[in-house]
Amino acid sequence: MSHDHRTTRAQQDGAKFRPLTVDRVRLEGFFGPRIDTICATTARTLFDRCIEAGMLDQIDPERPNPGLVIPFQHHNTVTTQMFWDSDFGKSIETAAYALNRHRDPELEALCDQVVDAYARLQQEDGYLNSWYIRIEPGRRWTNLRDRHELYNAGHLIEGAVAYYHATGKRRLLDILCRYADLIDRTFGPGEAQMRGYPGHPELELALVKLGRATGEPRYLELARFFVDERGRQPCWFDIEAEARGETPDQFHFGTLEYCQAHQPVREQTRVVGHAVRAAYLYAGMADVATEFADDSLSAPLNTLWSHLVDRNLYITGGFGPSAANEGLTFDYDLPNASAYAETCASVALVFWASRMLGRGADAAYADIMEQALYNNALAGLSLDGTHFFYDNPLESRGDHHRWKWHHCPCCPPNISRLVASVGAYVYGVADEAIAVHLYNAGTAHAEVAGQSVTLTQRTDYPFDGRVALRVEPTERVRFTLSLRVPGWSAGATLTLNGAPVEAESRAGYLHLTREWAAGDELVLEIDLSPRRVLAHPKVTVDQGRTALMYGPLVYCLEEVDNGADLNSLVLPDSATLTPRAIEQPAAMMALTAPALRESTDSEALYRITPPARQPVTLTAIPYYAWDHREPGAMLTWIRREGQS
Amino acid sequence: MSHDHRTTRAQQDGAKFRPLTVDRVRLEGFFGPRIDTICATTARTLFDRCIEAGMLDQIDPERPNPGLVIPFQHHNTVTTQMFWDSDFGKSIETAAYALNRHRDPELEALCDQVVDAYARLQQEDGYLNSWYIRIEPGRRWTNLRDRHELYNAGHLIEGAVAYYHATGKRRLLDILCRYADLIDRTFGPGEAQMRGYPGHPELELALVKLGRATGEPRYLELARFFVDERGRQPCWFDIEAEARGETPDQFHFGTLEYCQAHQPVREQTRVVGHAVRAAYLYAGMADVATEFADDSLSAPLNTLWSHLVDRNLYITGGFGPSAANEGLTFDYDLPNASAYAETCASVALVFWASRMLGRGADAAYADIMEQALYNNALAGLSLDGTHFFYDNPLESRGDHHRWKWHHCPCCPPNISRLVASVGAYVYGVADEAIAVHLYNAGTAHAEVAGQSVTLTQRTDYPFDGRVALRVEPTERVRFTLSLRVPGWSAGATLTLNGAPVEAESRAGYLHLTREWAAGDELVLEIDLSPRRVLAHPKVTVDQGRTALMYGPLVYCLEEVDNGADLNSLVLPDSATLTPRAIEQPAAMMALTAPALRESTDSEALYRITPPARQPVTLTAIPYYAWDHREPGAMLTWIRREGQS
Repeated sequence: MSHDHRTTRAQQDGAKFRPLTVDRVRLEGFFGPRIDTICATTARTLFDRCIEAGMLDQIDPERPNPGLVIPFQHHNTVTTQMFWDSDFGKSIETAAYALNRHRDPELEALCDQVVDAYARLQQEDGYLNSWYIRIEPGRRWTNLRDRHELYNAGHLIEGAVAYYHATGKRRLLDILCRYADLIDRTFGPGEAQMRGYPGHPELELALVKLGRATGEPRYLELARFFVDERGRQPCWFDIEAEARGETPDQFHFGTLEYCQAHQPVREQTRVVGHAVRAAYLYAGMADVATEFADDSLSAPLNTLWSHLVDRNLYITGGFGPSAANEGLTFDYDLPNASAYAETCASVALVFWASRMLGRGADAAYADIMEQALYNNALAGLSLDGTHFFYDNPLESRGDHHRWKWHHCPCCPPNISRLVASVGAYVYGVADEAIAVHLYNAGTAHAEVAGQSVTLTQRTDYPFDGRVALRVEPTERVRFTLSLRVPGWSAGATLTLNGAPVEAESRAGYLHLTREWAAGDELVLEIDLSPRRVLAHPKVTVDQGRTALMYGPLVYCLEEVDNGADLNSLVLPDSATLTPRAIEQPAAMMALTAPALRESTDSEALYRITPPARQPVTLTAIPYYAWDHREPGAMLTWIRREGQS
Repeated sequence: MSHDHRTTRAQQDGAKFRPLTVDRVRLEGFFGPRIDTICATTARTLFDRCIEAGMLDQIDPERPNPGLVIPFQHHNTVTTQMFWDSDFGKSIETAAYALNRHRDPELEALCDQVVDAYARLQQEDGYLNSWYIRIEPGRRWTNLRDRHELYNAGHLIEGAVAYYHATGKRRLLDILCRYADLIDRTFGPGEAQMRGYPGHPELELALVKLGRATGEPRYLELARFFVDERGRQPCWFDIEAEARGETPDQFHFGTLEYCQAHQPVREQTRVVGHAVRAAYLYAGMADVATEFADDSLSAPLNTLWSHLVDRNLYITGGFGPSAANEGLTFDYDLPNASAYAETCASVALVFWASRMLGRGADAAYADIMEQALYNNALAGLSLDGTHFFYDNPLESRGDHHRWKWHHCPCCPPNISRLVASVGAYVYGVADEAIAVHLYNAGTAHAEVAGQSVTLTQRTDYPFDGRVALRVEPTERVRFTLSLRVPGWSAGATLTLNGAPVEAESRAGYLHLTREWAAGDELVLEIDLSPRRVLAHPKVTVDQGRTALMYGPLVYCLEEVDNGADLNSLVLPDSATLTPRAIEQPAAMMALTAPALRESTDSEALYRITPPARQPVTLTAIPYYAWDHREPGAMLTWIRREGQS
C-alpha cells in the first residue's frame, strides 16, 4: 500500500529541502478549526496546567524553592519534575504557533511571564536548567543518560525559535543562544571538552532549528557532533556512571539500546528502545544529513526507516507497543488492546519523516508522515482541545479515555505544538524547487529561485480527493513543483489551467519543471475509494481481521454506533464500504458496510455450535475522532470473512 | 459443552464423598507411565534441586545459618526463601506418593534426612517454620498477610500425611500434629487467641487432610475457623499491619482482593486476586462444607465457580491471565500469548473441583477437574519428568520453554505431587456410594457399606472412549455406583455384564443402585469424536478462531509439524478432523485436518490484496505435550473460516 522505498530513492544530489516556518503558512480546511481551537483554548490551558502542577515555582528563582515535588521512579533514575523545562518549552512553542494565527495579548503575556522567569534563572555562564539550578545544584553534566538535561535545552530552544518567529521578540532566543553557546563550549572533541550527548535525544534537531533561525553554523556543527559521537566506545554514559560511583550495569533500563547509545549511529540497523528517543534521534540525524549533505547517514537512516515501517509500525502510525520501556520489543509485536503507541512517539515520527524529505521528495516518507499525523498523533488531542491521550490502543473495552493532564505531561504540549504547526509540514522548499507533501486548504508564502511565491490550496481533503493549487509568483519564475500522489491511492489525474499536463512521475511525486506565472492553477484528483488493509501474517493478532481506511485515515468501530461486543461483528470481504457524511462527533466522513453480528445469547464461555448471525450495518469513524461520545468499546482491526 | 451447573445440582443431603488415599489406587494406562517417571526421576530431582538451592541449610539447625539468600521482592514484601518449607513439604508429599508405588530406600532415606532436620528445628512449644526460627527470629505471627507462615504449615502437613500413608512412619506426622496443636491454641475466637488466618490459603485444606488422617476433630474445627474468620471486619491483616507500624494502604498489592480477604467468604461472588490463593481457599471452603455438611457455603462456592468457569477460565483449564498479580484481571480477559495461567493455579483448580464433588457427584465440577488436569496442569511437567512450566501461554512464538527449576519453585513439586497422586481423584466414596469421576486403567480398593470393594478399570482413555469397569466386593453388597458421562461427549452407552442397563441419569452421571457381586463388569462407551470449540464473543482475542479438542484434551499446533507462521494457517469449518496415532513426542493421538496456508511472500507490513492460499494438512498434538521437540512456535486458537 505504500511506495516501495527500497527500490526507488528520490534523493537529489545536493538538494536541501527545508520546511517553511509556521508563520509562512495559514491553514483552513481540515486543520484550520483544529488550530483555531488551540488558539482559543489549548495554548492557554497548557500554561494553566503547568502552573497548577507547580512548575513555575521551580523555574522562577524569586519563588520559594519547592524541592522535590514528584517522587523519583525507576529506582531513583528519574522524576518527571526533571523535565519541567521541556513542558514549558513545548507550551511556549505551542503558544507561539497560536500567536502566528491570532496575536492574543493575554497569551503573549503568559509567555513573557515565563520568559522573565527564565531570564532570572539563567546563570552567569549561560547555564539554564531549573532542576539542576534549584533542586540538584552542583550536579550539572553528571548524568546525561538519565536526567533529561540536554533534552530540556532542546525543547527550550524550539520554544525560543518559534516565539521569535511569531512575535519578533529576541529575548528568549538570546537567552537560549547563550545557553547553546555554553553547551557548545562544554561538549565537543576538544581536550577540555566533554564527549557527552543527550540521554534523551531532542537537542540535535533543536540545534538545527536554531542554526537555521540564526544563521549560526556552530549550532549545526554541534548537532553533528552529538550525532557522530553517540554510541562510540568507550560509551560516555558508562564513563559518567563510573564517575558517579556506579557501574554501567546498574542502568535501570538494562541496555543502552533504551537510549540508542549501544552503537555508533551509522552502525545501527534496528529501531530499538524508547520510541520517542529513537525517532527524535533519527530526526536529528536526518537534519544533519540535510544540512551537511552527509550521505554517510542516508543508508543507516533508510535501514532504520525500513525496520520501523516494515515490521514495527501500527496501521495508525503509532509505534512502541510496550509500556515497560515505552518502546520497541520484537518485530511484528503489535498488540492492539495493550498498544502503548505513545502520542509523543507518533509526533516524533512525523518529525522524523518530514526530515527524511530533506534530501528530496519521496512519498515513502510523506505517506508515513501523513499516516502518523492523521491517526495516532491526531487522536492524542480531543476535538475541543482540552484532553489528551498518552497511549493509543487500537482496541478498547471502554475504559480508555483522554486525560485532562498526565502524571508525565509530555504528550499534551507535544501533540498541541504539532497540530498548531502542521502548516510547516505541507511544503518543502529547496533552491529551485517546491515539494507539496500534504494537502490541506490554505495559503503559504515561499521564496524560491529568488522570487516570492504564494501557494493556495482549495480542497476538502482528506474527505475529498480534489485539490486545486494556485501558484502566484511575484514575477514569472522557473522552478520545479512536485506534487505527492499518495501511495495508497488507486490513481490520480493532474491538470494545469484546465488541461491535462505531462509530469514526471518519480518516487511518488509528479514533478513539473517550468516557468510559473501568477494565476497558474493545478488540479490534482486523488482516488479516495475506501479500502481494506490486511496485516502481514507475522502480526499474529491481526490475522483474520481487516482495518478500514479512507485516504490517509484509519477507521474504527465504536460501541456508540455499533453496540457492544464489537468482536461479534464480522465483515464479509465482499461487503461494499460506503462513505457517509456525519456531524457527530464533528463534521467528517464515516464508512458504513453491511456486516453480520454473531449472537451473544449463550452464557457459556465455550461452545461447539457456531452462534447464529444476523445482518447489521456497521459504522466506522476515523480513529482520530474516537472517544468523543458515549464512553464505550472501540475496535480497529475488524473480523473479516470470505475466501481471497 | 459442559453440563449446566446452574440448573442441575447434584448435592445429596448429608452425603460426604471423600477421596481414596493415594495408597489405595494404582494407575496404569495413560497416567501409569507418568507416575513411573516421577518414581524413577522427578521425586529425587525435586530434593536435589531444593538442596542445591540451599534450602536444607535453612531448615537444619545443625548447619550454619545461611541468612538471607534470596533478595526481597515487591518492596520488601516477600522473598521466595520464606516458603522453602513449602517446597520441602511438597517434595516430601511427591516422594511419599512415589513410595506408594515403589518403595525406594534411597528416596525414603532422603525424606528421612529432611524429617530429621525438621525434628531438630521444631521448637519446644511445637512451632516449626524455618524462616522465622532461623532468619527472622522473634517475629512469628506478625505478618500473616505477606509472609506465607501458615501456608508453609499447610504444605508440611500435607507432606506429613502423605508420608504417613505411604510408609506408616508417624514421626513427621507427629511433628506436624504438635505444630497444628500450637496453631490451634494460638488462633481462634478465644480472648487470648489471635483472630488471624493464612495470607496465602492452603492450611485450610491441609487441616482437613490431617483431621481425616488422624480422626482429630480439632483440626477440622480449626479449618472452619480460618474459613469463617477470613475477610471479617476489622480485617486481621489491617490490625497486624498497624501493629507493625504500617498503614493498611501500604500493602504492596493494593487490595485485599489479592488474598481474598476483602469480604467474608460467604459474601464473595467473584474470583479475584492471586489465582493460586483463590483456588486453595475455595478448595478449603469446599472441604469444610463437606465435613460439616455446611450448606451456607454452597451458594457462595457455586457463585464463585460460575464466575470462574463462565468468564475466566482458559480452554486449557488455566486461569489468572496476569503476571502482575499472578491472577485475575477482568471478566473475559483471556489473552493467549501473554497468558500467565500458572501451573500451580490449575493444580489448585483440580483440588477445588475435586472438593466440589464432596457433596455429591456433578459432572459440572468433574469435567473442569479433568480439563485442568489433562491440559494446563499436565503441560507443567515434561514427559521425562525433569522440566517444568511455570506459566502456560496458549500461543508462543518459540521462546517459551520448560524450566529446569524456577526462581520461585512452587510449580515443580506442585504438578509433581498432583500427577503422582492422580489416583486419588478418580473415585469419590461416601457411606453407600462410589462415584467414578475419571477414567484411567488401574485398580482401586474402597470401603463402602461395610464391605471392601476392588474396582478395576481397563481402558485406553483419553485416546479411546471404551471403559470396562470390574466391581469386586468381598461379599455381595448394595451401594450406588455413579459413572460420569463427560459433558463434552456427544453420547455414551452403558452395559452391565454384556447387556444394556437402565441407569438414572442425573447431573452428568449414570447412577446404578443395586447389589453388586464379584465379577460384575460395566462397559461405558463414550463418544470421543474430535470437536471444534468456539469462545464467547466477549473473549475478543479468540473471535474468528477455534480450538480443537478430542475427549478432555485440548490440541495445539506446533511449528515442528506445521512450519512457521502458524497464524497464516486457516482451518475451514467444513474440514474433517481425523485422529491419528503418533509416536513422537510420545505415543498419543494427533489430529489432522485439511487447511489453507496464506502466502507470506510479501515483505510489506500492510497490504490490500489478500495473500494467496494453498492447501496444506494441519497437524495438532495435545497441549500437554507441546515443547518437547524442536523449539518453535505454538498456537492453540486456530483461525477458522466458513459461515455458520
